[in-house]
Amino acid sequence: MGYGMAQSVLRAGHHTYGVDINAAAMARFAAEGGSTGNLSDVVGELDAVAIVVLNAQQTEAVLFGEAGVVPGMKPGTVVIACATVPPEFARAMQARCGEHGVHYLDAPISGGALKAAQGALSIMASGTPKAFKAARGVLDATAETVFELGDAAGAGSAMKAVNQLLAGVHIAVMAEALTFGMTQGVTPDKFVEVISKCAGTSWMLENRAPHIVDGDYTPRSSINIWPKDLNIVLDIAKSAKFSAPITAAALQQFKAAADQGLGGEDDAAVAKVYARNVGLKLPGEV
Amino acid sequence: MGYGMAQSVLRAGHHTYGVDINAAAMARFAAEGGSTGNLSDVVGELDAVAIVVLNAQQTEAVLFGEAGVVPGMKPGTVVIACATVPPEFARAMQARCGEHGVHYLDAPISGGALKAAQGALSIMASGTPKAFKAARGVLDATAETVFELGDAAGAGSAMKAVNQLLAGVHIAVMAEALTFGMTQGVTPDKFVEVISKCAGTSWMLENRAPHIVDGDYTPRSSINIWPKDLNIVLDIAKSAKFSAPITAAALQQFKAAADQGLGGEDDAAVAKVYARNVGLKLPGEV
Repeated sequence: MGYGMAQSVLRAGHHTYGVDINAAAMARFAAEGGSTGNLSDVVGELDAVAIVVLNAQQTEAVLFGEAGVVPGMKPGTVVIACATVPPEFARAMQARCGEHGVHYLDAPISGGALKAAQGALSIMASGTPKAFKAARGVLDATAETVFELGDAAGAGSAMKAVNQLLAGVHIAVMAEALTFGMTQGVTPDKFVEVISKCAGTSWMLENRAPHIVDGDYTPRSSINIWPKDLNIVLDIAKSAKFSAPITAAALQQFKAAADQGLGGEDDAAVAKVYARNVGLKLPGEV
Repeated sequence: MGYGMAQSVLRAGHHTYGVDINAAAMARFAAEGGSTGNLSDVVGELDAVAIVVLNAQQTEAVLFGEAGVVPGMKPGTVVIACATVPPEFARAMQARCGEHGVHYLDAPISGGALKAAQGALSIMASGTPKAFKAARGVLDATAETVFELGDAAGAGSAMKAVNQLLAGVHIAVMAEALTFGMTQGVTPDKFVEVISKCAGTSWMLENRAPHIVDGDYTPRSSINIWPKDLNIVLDIAKSAKFSAPITAAALQQFKAAADQGLGGEDDAAVAKVYARNVGLKLPGEV
């Protein structure tokens, strides 16, 4: 998604650096007209730095680690933090960036790599009016929808956690229902045809169940996302002494999928956990 | 929903008897131009009998109990069985009706009382072509969509069970996510506004979460439906040696709601279980 966002910002006419641990990705970005280089060499020239990494730990390393960018950024510029992180972490990063005169936009993203490249993400953002203003060029270039969720970091991450809770459970329960149906003679294609028109439908069901019908587990979004994101949700819940039993049940199914070596497959492959438990063959399985 | 279906059949111009254990409902139906009476007195005149009751046990009692209707029905007429029941039960009823020359349409309904009265139900139906033909007048009068799921009883009930699994989990996880969000400062109205446009949305979320925002638990569909329907799902799953942990987790939340005296409230009231656990006040609570 970071690569797609860089493409979208570049296409909007901004001078754009792409930085990745994958050298091939950087070479490809250079071939498309982007700039590349060592982030710490160029950070003083930048108006905005968008951080699209896995989690809070990686975000903190990019911002304040050994080669952390924030101390080198000009006052009045902005960090746009796009990973799924605990709201409390976002608030702490906002405060630390503030010590350097740098704005912080708590801006988790949703939509996947394709929408990032199309400039059509959904961004759940919160931060000061100055942070929004400084980030506007990047937001306009990358997002179809920006939810402006308040003037303090944390609100964006809170809404993202809520969305991930639902999205993860909806994928896992789609798999549970689809395979349950198979035990009763409901074929996966009939499942999609009928349920997508009924009260049992969800956005995720309509998006992911066709992958199972097609037997196509090319990762549009992988299993490995979910143990990570649902653990973030449950960590936040634990801090709030909030019990989330349905989320916990869904997490176990994604963990089982990862344990069975399916971590790199499309997240619809969580259906394989259910199918194996009961000896069903999914479409495309022999 | 039975009352609404009777209204829809009457409005379509059919001579319609309404039978209910509630005498006031029958008086109201008579006032609207319907016929009432003792079912066993009139059953020989009928072309079709639609059974809209709670479960398999009640369905069997109406069909074959002490005052069971099937032995009195004319050969070639049809039973339209609308309750949520195990597929195996539907197959057994088809066979027993067949012994009396009576067709059986396995026809669970979805959509609620309002859509029943509007003739706009979804019906998940399976049965022989003769059963469909004999039921056509009632189906046309009551349904916006009839999913024709095959020529043997059982397939309709199987799809209904799949739909109920998803619908029940989606309601409970909506409540889990909404209240989790509240612990992080996400208000219920912001939850609906944002999540209904994101990947975390579901049909049930968009339908039920506004009840929580409005603090209105007038039962459009009550908590009590879910321990019943999710237990049917889990009984079917158990027979198939299928493990459904997310469904089981959702069932516990509805059971807790019923245990807390919320059984007669709208099913969105499952949010109160989560809110009470963590000391949150939902909208409208003092």
